[in-house]
Amino acid sequence: MTEAEARKTQESLQDRLAQVVELLERYTLAGEISQAREGQPDITEAPQDILADLQQRLNALHPADVAHILEALPLEQRLAVWHLVRAERDGDILLEVSDAVRETLIADMDDQEILAAAKEMDADELADLAPELPRDVVHELMESLDAQQRERVRSALSYEEDQVGALMDFQMVTIREDVSLEVVLRYLRRLKELPGHTDKLFVVDYDGALKGVLPIKRLLVNDPEKQVAEVMASDPVTFHPDEDAYEAAQAFERYDLVSSPVVDKNGKLIGRLTIDEIVDLIREESESEVLNMAGLREEEDIFASVWKSVHNRWAWLAINLVTAFVASRVIGLFDGAIEKLVALAALMPIVAGIGGNSGNQTITMIVRAMALDQVSISNTVRLLRKELGVALVNGLVWGGVIGLVAWGLYENWALGVVMMAAMTLNLLLAALMGVLIPMTLARLGRDPAMGASVMITAMTDSGGFFIFLGLATIFLM
Amino acid sequence: MTEAEARKTQESLQDRLAQVVELLERYTLAGEISQAREGQPDITEAPQDILADLQQRLNALHPADVAHILEALPLEQRLAVWHLVRAERDGDILLEVSDAVRETLIADMDDQEILAAAKEMDADELADLAPELPRDVVHELMESLDAQQRERVRSALSYEEDQVGALMDFQMVTIREDVSLEVVLRYLRRLKELPGHTDKLFVVDYDGALKGVLPIKRLLVNDPEKQVAEVMASDPVTFHPDEDAYEAAQAFERYDLVSSPVVDKNGKLIGRLTIDEIVDLIREESESEVLNMAGLREEEDIFASVWKSVHNRWAWLAINLVTAFVASRVIGLFDGAIEKLVALAALMPIVAGIGGNSGNQTITMIVRAMALDQVSISNTVRLLRKELGVALVNGLVWGGVIGLVAWGLYENWALGVVMMAAMTLNLLLAALMGVLIPMTLARLGRDPAMGASVMITAMTDSGGFFIFLGLATIFLM
Repeated sequence: MTEAEARKTQESLQDRLAQVVELLERYTLAGEISQAREGQPDITEAPQDILADLQQRLNALHPADVAHILEALPLEQRLAVWHLVRAERDGDILLEVSDAVRETLIADMDDQEILAAAKEMDADELADLAPELPRDVVHELMESLDAQQRERVRSALSYEEDQVGALMDFQMVTIREDVSLEVVLRYLRRLKELPGHTDKLFVVDYDGALKGVLPIKRLLVNDPEKQVAEVMASDPVTFHPDEDAYEAAQAFERYDLVSSPVVDKNGKLIGRLTIDEIVDLIREESESEVLNMAGLREEEDIFASVWKSVHNRWAWLAINLVTAFVASRVIGLFDGAIEKLVALAALMPIVAGIGGNSGNQTITMIVRAMALDQVSISNTVRLLRKELGVALVNGLVWGGVIGLVAWGLYENWALGVVMMAAMTLNLLLAALMGVLIPMTLARLGRDPAMGASVMITAMTDSGGFFIFLGLATIFLM
Repeated sequence: MTEAEARKTQESLQDRLAQVVELLERYTLAGEISQAREGQPDITEAPQDILADLQQRLNALHPADVAHILEALPLEQRLAVWHLVRAERDGDILLEVSDAVRETLIADMDDQEILAAAKEMDADELADLAPELPRDVVHELMESLDAQQRERVRSALSYEEDQVGALMDFQMVTIREDVSLEVVLRYLRRLKELPGHTDKLFVVDYDGALKGVLPIKRLLVNDPEKQVAEVMASDPVTFHPDEDAYEAAQAFERYDLVSSPVVDKNGKLIGRLTIDEIVDLIREESESEVLNMAGLREEEDIFASVWKSVHNRWAWLAINLVTAFVASRVIGLFDGAIEKLVALAALMPIVAGIGGNSGNQTITMIVRAMALDQVSISNTVRLLRKELGVALVNGLVWGGVIGLVAWGLYENWALGVVMMAAMTLNLLLAALMGVLIPMTLARLGRDPAMGASVMITAMTDSGGFFIFLGLATIFLM
C-alpha cells in the first residue's frame, strides 16, 4: 500500500461505501435474473463481471478503509465483502476492525484461513488477536513461532488491556552508544527498511539496558563524526509495561511524543509505544466514557443482532427499573395528598426532570475534570461550593418562573411557593450528588463515568418527588 | 526543556499539584504570622523562602505540566502561580492551557507582558491566541511581524476553528527533486535543528508547488547517490486548508500519519498538519460530544465563577423547563383519570423513566456511529428495525415484570396489562426518536449530539405520560 493509493481513498468514504453497496445489490439482482432466465441468451450484466469489478475496487483500498466498509455493512453484506478481499490482506484488515466486528469475521473463517492471516503478523498484533481466536488455532500459531516471538506474544498477553504492556510493539531499532553517527547511518542503510513511527533510535548496552535515545532529528543535523553518546538524550521519557496505558497517553499528549521506549524494572529495553496506538486508545477511552455514562456495557456493532444488543443494554435498564420503582413507591407514600390536589401529579415530573438535567450537567463536568486529573481531595470543597451556588441560582430563577406559572395555572399561590422551594432543593440535591457520585465511584476504584447518568437521574427522581410531595403535604394539606 | 526534565515530571501530576498547593498555603500562613509578629525575631519560615522554593519547582516543570496545574487551581491560587512563572515561559504555557483558563490568565496580564510572551511564537501559535487578546495588542503584534509572518497569521485567522487551515503550522522543511540524497543530508546538517514531528520532507518545485514527499525513513535507508525524485512518494496524502479538520483527523488515524502537507487549490505547499495538533483535536472533539449530549454549551473551567457556569448551562435548562412543562400539561389532560385512580400518578414516572434511559442508550449508539461515518441513508431502515426490535424485547420483558408488580401491588390485573402495553409502546417511541433525532439534526447541518439527551428525554416523558394515561383512560375508566 503506497501513500498514493491511500490518497485516492481519502476523498469520501461515504461514496465508497455507497458504491460497494450498489455493486452488491446489482450482483444479487443479476444473479436472480440470470437464474430466472437460465439457458436464455444473457442480456443482463453477468454476475461475475460485477463481482470482478467489486473485487478490483476493494483491492485498491487501504486495509483501514476496507475495515471501515465492513463495519458499516449489515452481516450478510459484510461477509460477502469479506470473502472477496484477497486472502493475503485478511490479517491487516482484521487488525483494523473493531472487536465486535472482528468477532463476526473470525466466526466466518476456517482454521487454515486464520493461520494464514496470522502468519504475517508481528508478535504484538498476534497478542491483540489471540483472545478472540479458537483455542487450538492459538496453540498451533504459537507452535509455529520462534522462541523470541513466542516469548513476546506470551508477555504481551500477560498484561491487562489498559496496561502499557498490552499496547507496546517490538519493532525497535537499537544502537550502541560508542559508535559514530556515521556508523549509525551506514547501519540504517543496511536495514533497507525502518519500522513505522521511528522518530528515535534506542541506545542500549550489551545487556540490553536502555542508555538513552537518539532522536532521528539529532542524527540528521549533527556532524557524522560525533559519537552517539555525545548526541543522544540520556534520560528520555520511558514507560513500564505494567503502567496504566491512559497515563502513558496523557504523557504522549503532554510531551508531544511520537514513540517512546518501554523498559522493565531493571531498565532493560523490552518494547516501544507509538503514537498510532495511543491515538486509538484515546479514541476508545472517550468512546467508552460516552457509552458508560449512558449505561451501555461496551462497544456495540451497530448491526449486532437484537439479542446481542439486548444483552449489552439490559444491566443498566434493570437497575433503572429498580430505581424507577423506588421513585414510584415514594409517590405512593403521598397518594392521599395527590387525591386531594391532583395538580401535584402534573407538577411533580417538572421538579424531577429539571433536577435530572441539571445533575447530568454537573456529573458530566466532574467526570471530565476527573479524567483530566483536575479534581483532587483538596479542591472538592470548592467544587461543591461552586456547584451548589449554580444550583441555588438556577433553583431560585427557574423555580421562580415555574412557581409563577403554577400559581397562574392553578390559582394557588401557596402551590407556586412550594414548587419553587422544591425545585431549589432538588437542584441542590442534584449538585451534591453530581459531585459525590463520581468521586465515590473513583474512590471505590470504579470508573467514575459508570452509569453516572442512570444514578444521578435515580437520585433526582426519587428525591424530587419526595421533596415536592413532602413540602406539599406539610404546607398545602 | 529537555526530555530529561519532562521525565521527572511524569511520575504523578496529582502529587506535584498537591505540593504546589501545600507551598501556596504555607506561604499564605507564613505571611500572616510574620505580619502578626512584625518587629519580633522571625522564628517561622520566611515567606520569601517558601516562594523561592515554589518558583524553583515550577521552573523545573514542562510548560504542559504548569498548564495542567494552573487548570486545576482555583482563581486566586492560579494567578499566584501564574505570577511566579518565569516571564519567558508565559507564551508556551498560554498555548497549553484550555481556552477558558487562558482567558483568566490573559485578563491578569498587561499589554507589555502579552507582547513579550507573543514575541517568541510562531505564526500558527499567534493565530491560536489572537482571538482572545485585546484588539490593540493584536494590532501592535501584527505591526512587529515581517511580511511573510503577518500574511501567515492573517491566513490562519481566516479559517474556521474546525478547518484544516486553522490547525496547520508553517514549519515545513522543503527540498528540490533534482538533487541527490547526499545533498539533502548536507542541507539538513546546515539547518542545525529540525522542526518537531518532521517525519517527511516536502519536495517542491521553483514555484512552491508540491511534487511529493520524502519520508525521513527513505532518506535514511536509501543510497545517498540516488536522486530525491527516485525515492520520494510522488502522490502523498494531502489536505486543503478549507477541508474539515475532523476528516483530516480521521485520515491521520486511518493511515497512521505523523505529518502531512497542506496545499492550496493550485497544488502549492502552504503548510503542514502534525499529529500533535490532531491528537488535541480528537480529545476536544470527544469532549465536546460528551458536553453537548448533556446540554453544556462549551468547555467550562471547573473553577469558573458561579455566574459563568450558570450562563454556560442555562440555555438547555430553559429548553428542558419548557419540555417539562409540556409533559406536565400532558398529565394535566388526564387529571380526571388520576383523581379516580391515584395509582396512575405513582406508576407513570416508571413508564417515562425507562423510556428515557432506553432512548439515551439508542441515541448514544447512533451519535457514535454517525461520528464514525458508519450511518448512511442506505442503512437507516436496517438500524431502525434493529433498534425497534431491541425496544420490543425490552418492552415485553421489563414491561411484563413491572406489569406483574403493578398487578400485585394494586390488585388490578387490567392496570398491569396497561402498564406493560404502555412500557412497550414508549420504548418503541424511544427507539424511533433515538434514531431520528440525531439523523434529523445532521440533515439540518447541526451537531447530532447537540442536547440529544435533553431532547430524547422530552419525547419519552411527554410520550410516556400520554401513552400510559391515554391507555388507562380507554381501558380502565
